[in-house]
Amino acid sequence: MAAVTAPKQDRSRATRRRLLEAAVACLAERGWAGSTVSVVAERAGVSRGAAQHHFPTREDLFTAAVEYVAEERCTALRALPRRHTAAVVAAMVDLYTGPLFRAALHLWVAASNEEKLRRRVTELEAHFGRESHRMAVELLHADESRPGVRETVQGFLDMARGLGLANLLTDDTARRHKVVAQWSQLLEEALTSP
Amino acid sequence: MAAVTAPKQDRSRATRRRLLEAAVACLAERGWAGSTVSVVAERAGVSRGAAQHHFPTREDLFTAAVEYVAEERCTALRALPRRHTAAVVAAMVDLYTGPLFRAALHLWVAASNEEKLRRRVTELEAHFGRESHRMAVELLHADESRPGVRETVQGFLDMARGLGLANLLTDDTARRHKVVAQWSQLLEEALTSP
Repeated sequence: MAAVTAPKQDRSRATRRRLLEAAVACLAERGWAGSTVSVVAERAGVSRGAAQHHFPTREDLFTAAVEYVAEERCTALRALPRRHTAAVVAAMVDLYTGPLFRAALHLWVAASNEEKLRRRVTELEAHFGRESHRMAVELLHADESRPGVRETVQGFLDMARGLGLANLLTDDTARRHKVVAQWSQLLEEALTSP
Repeated sequence: MAAVTAPKQDRSRATRRRLLEAAVACLAERGWAGSTVSVVAERAGVSRGAAQHHFPTREDLFTAAVEYVAEERCTALRALPRRHTAAVVAAMVDLYTGPLFRAALHLWVAASNEEKLRRRVTELEAHFGRESHRMAVELLHADESRPGVRETVQGFLDMARGLGLANLLTDDTARRHKVVAQWSQLLEEALTSP
């Protein structure tokens, strides 16, 4: 029995993952208005019925998708070997400038006008906010018992979010690299000065 | 003749301004999908025909609106008496946390999926980016001939944009005030240290 069940569970999990990844890609490319369960199912090569079995509503699918991909990316980032501040800052800023941030931004903005989405996206935002703060503190070896350090790290994450927004319509890579280099230095000084 | 023309021009200008202000408020509250010329005309107490006389397309109306309100706010900010870094930082961050930023964000995100909007919003963004950078340099008395100062100021504006985004779904005021207080100090040090 177990031999039959396990591959079935694996297949189900693989389908779920394909749907989640397709949902983020779809949201990033087409925005909320253009992202439906059908479009995602087709992109993932899954029947609409199977998609609805996994995610009964559109809200379920897209909030789960952003959460899943965000956690995947955070896990990958945490697994990297310890490095210098500049490398950590660059890697964290990268979190905010790819398709994941673009997808999250579409969800975020849609949630500001849609009651059904708002509560779930607010929870997701709070969860990811705490997670990314904890990750930044850990990777930057920030000592939050010192006054101001907590707010220094928070401001850095706000800057990363703003850099993501600046990359939405045009390729902001060249400017961003210079800003990141300079702010890495400011952060390093702020986190190490007595 | 002049006596007849002048009040007519004044009335036309007043109508235009009412439309622009209503368009920003509408975009901030209802998002791009819920913002049409008709909705704005009604809100401004102007006929649909008159609205279309001033702004032939939906794209014309909303890009002009965000541009107009942004310039109004910048002019007001520039006219304030010279103050300390903390007050300048707080006043500039305020630019990004009210209805204007909310409206601009909706336009921005819609532009990422709508060809007709993209080019105009990209131009608007570039223009406002230059303007706000120039304003920040001026108000903070930043000496851009010194290495790193330009990027320090840019990163601060990115942080302000990120703080605006963090205020979209929930009231982030308390956290933001602490971040702004801390980074005002870091910015002041970065801009004045040799």
